[in-house]
Amino acid sequence: ISDGMFVRVRNMLDGMAANDIAMLLHASTPKTRAIVWQLIDSSIQGEVLEDLSEEVRNSILRTMTPESVAEAAVNLDDDDFSEVLRSMPDKVYRKVLKSMDKQDQARAERVMSYEEDTAAALMNTDTITVRPDVTVDVILRYLRLKESLPEATDYLYVVDKQDHFIGEVSLAALVTSSPTKLISEVMETDFEVIPASMHESEVASLFERYDWLTAPVIDEEGVLLGRITIDDVVDIIREDAEHSMMSMAGLDDEADTFAPVIDSTRKRSLWLGVNLFTALLAAFVSSLFESTLDELAFLAVLNTIVPSMGGVAGSQTLTLVIRGMAVGHVNEANSRWLLGKELAIGFLNGLIWAVLIAGVVALWKQDLMLGGVLAFAMLMNLISAGLAGVLIPLMLKRMNIDPALAGSVILTTVTDIVGIFAFLGTATWLLL
Amino acid sequence: ISDGMFVRVRNMLDGMAANDIAMLLHASTPKTRAIVWQLIDSSIQGEVLEDLSEEVRNSILRTMTPESVAEAAVNLDDDDFSEVLRSMPDKVYRKVLKSMDKQDQARAERVMSYEEDTAAALMNTDTITVRPDVTVDVILRYLRLKESLPEATDYLYVVDKQDHFIGEVSLAALVTSSPTKLISEVMETDFEVIPASMHESEVASLFERYDWLTAPVIDEEGVLLGRITIDDVVDIIREDAEHSMMSMAGLDDEADTFAPVIDSTRKRSLWLGVNLFTALLAAFVSSLFESTLDELAFLAVLNTIVPSMGGVAGSQTLTLVIRGMAVGHVNEANSRWLLGKELAIGFLNGLIWAVLIAGVVALWKQDLMLGGVLAFAMLMNLISAGLAGVLIPLMLKRMNIDPALAGSVILTTVTDIVGIFAFLGTATWLLL
Repeated sequence: ISDGMFVRVRNMLDGMAANDIAMLLHASTPKTRAIVWQLIDSSIQGEVLEDLSEEVRNSILRTMTPESVAEAAVNLDDDDFSEVLRSMPDKVYRKVLKSMDKQDQARAERVMSYEEDTAAALMNTDTITVRPDVTVDVILRYLRLKESLPEATDYLYVVDKQDHFIGEVSLAALVTSSPTKLISEVMETDFEVIPASMHESEVASLFERYDWLTAPVIDEEGVLLGRITIDDVVDIIREDAEHSMMSMAGLDDEADTFAPVIDSTRKRSLWLGVNLFTALLAAFVSSLFESTLDELAFLAVLNTIVPSMGGVAGSQTLTLVIRGMAVGHVNEANSRWLLGKELAIGFLNGLIWAVLIAGVVALWKQDLMLGGVLAFAMLMNLISAGLAGVLIPLMLKRMNIDPALAGSVILTTVTDIVGIFAFLGTATWLLL
Repeated sequence: ISDGMFVRVRNMLDGMAANDIAMLLHASTPKTRAIVWQLIDSSIQGEVLEDLSEEVRNSILRTMTPESVAEAAVNLDDDDFSEVLRSMPDKVYRKVLKSMDKQDQARAERVMSYEEDTAAALMNTDTITVRPDVTVDVILRYLRLKESLPEATDYLYVVDKQDHFIGEVSLAALVTSSPTKLISEVMETDFEVIPASMHESEVASLFERYDWLTAPVIDEEGVLLGRITIDDVVDIIREDAEHSMMSMAGLDDEADTFAPVIDSTRKRSLWLGVNLFTALLAAFVSSLFESTLDELAFLAVLNTIVPSMGGVAGSQTLTLVIRGMAVGHVNEANSRWLLGKELAIGFLNGLIWAVLIAGVVALWKQDLMLGGVLAFAMLMNLISAGLAGVLIPLMLKRMNIDPALAGSVILTTVTDIVGIFAFLGTATWLLL
């Protein structure tokens, strides 16, 4: 961006919604990102910060003074406020806290006291509460005095004198009921509430299952603490759904596509290191058959086919099982049936491709026996792939290890080693 | 499930929400699924059908008579109604249509006339419309006569005599405004509307970006057709997010974990066939160096390491780019910067692992030259992996091919072939 364009860019940014600016920042290179950030109106900076992924947000927070961070953050809703505060290093957080006034400091400390990834950390405290023993008309007058309601308000919450949650009244009920009725007559009492300590993934699945727009959050004594709105839940649903894909490639959920080269290299090298180790393991297994390879060099040419097919078949099973576990379809009860099914698929697909590869190799090398050896190895490896694809994620989950992260490395190690043993082992036995 | 348990299961099912029953069916084996379906109360069957994934739904529709399908479907909202009707084979659809009454037939034909995957197919027609020249008080009386509002109603839509959409009034505005005000004074006119022909993914990203709960749908003339609610959008967000992961493993988005073995085998075998072809291609490349392998059998042992590392590094880049394109962060404008970045990462990671592998092999075989050859091949392949990881999805997208589906096969073919050429080619040149 050249100097003369600054004014034009600033005018363009002024007309954009926070979420669109966040999108633009995500799609920018680090240099452009820094310039664009400077040009954003400070009144909207907080909202933009909240819409950024953690990695991109941190890269921008690093460039800001504690004072301007504080200024941008205090205008946010509770849940976004805590998200921005939580993503700062401790030292920065303390500096930011210092530059706030007393009231905001207290609020910051309150939202930071909730455990991360729980319903409490997701909620806002902008609820409107009413008593059960007043009429609809009284409530309508009270609301007219307020002049406006918090965004996405669809329910008023009914509480007793100790703030215990006892029911809820929808705006729809308010506008369709006779003004003389009591709140206790029009309120719903077969409500579902969210305990403050519930994990955010569970909150998301409740919202998805019951098509909620908002839901009240209560503490252990049943006291109303706040409410969760669907827009924050949508973010969690997207993150959860993306988590498996990113983890399977050994990437961070929120990996920044445009992070500096050194950062990205460092983060990705760990995964490559793990893979190098498993590749060396496979090479070591092959080296056990070095004398066989020495006598029949063509075996070396074919040695990659069976492990590769096992890897693909195993990944298919693994991906299905990981997705099934994430959405709750796969559990201990049906895993035995699933294992049987995947073994059967492995056997059938093994047969198909064993026959095919045997034919190809028999034609290529005019060697029926070699084709037979390859076919046998293929069948064995596709069956093991089905077995490993089901058992590995189940075992990892029982050990509390994320199957999406560790599953694919372990799986390909298994299919590589089984594939090499089955092929070179049988070849050593039958062809020499 | 034994005979005596039927009653107990039926009682349990009667107490469950449609969404919970759908969850149970997804997690059941085909046999249990058929039994459970029989025990579900027919009044809720339609709702359960709508909550099922396409594959599971079809497996159940196949077991039902056209009459019971019609009965279950007509109670659904427009968008769910059209989804269930669309998922039937043509022949079944015609039979189901025949067993509906005239009014439902007309409705079925209307919802089926909308193009699939558009805003129109997602919308419901349960909007409440008001005129601009009446007072808030008149509207409140009108709503009290209605006694209840459609689910998730947060806005009333303001239309003129020809049903053109001219503004919207939130329930929040209704309850906070003075009853004597005109609707035209309290309505919002800086609204955003959704054209009926907009693609559902774009609808989802608008909802996500602007935190909408509902949004009006209009035709080209600006006539209000209906509204879209966030619960249907959440489903699309989840499907879109899962699509990439499933496609990368060559699986259907909605693949049924518990489908019959033959179905699953058939669906997965295509992907394995494609992979077998690429594995044979890699084997063919290796066979070009058969005489080299004949002389130095140990090269065969190491031949899998470089392609494997290239595959992993390339998948990381590919996954990032595919996700980046799906959420709109990666585009033509920033792809050149991204290519430069990924090449740099490939070079740096290539250097790190080249040095390490050279050390390992030099120690293992006491052969510095062999280590050097392997290191060179590693560097070359990780650079190509970065290049391929960015360019392949961009090119596929330009050709209108889904990068998530075809990307990983093409990528591993490239990294396999480059890896083998770089390693065996250099070895032939330097070591023989």
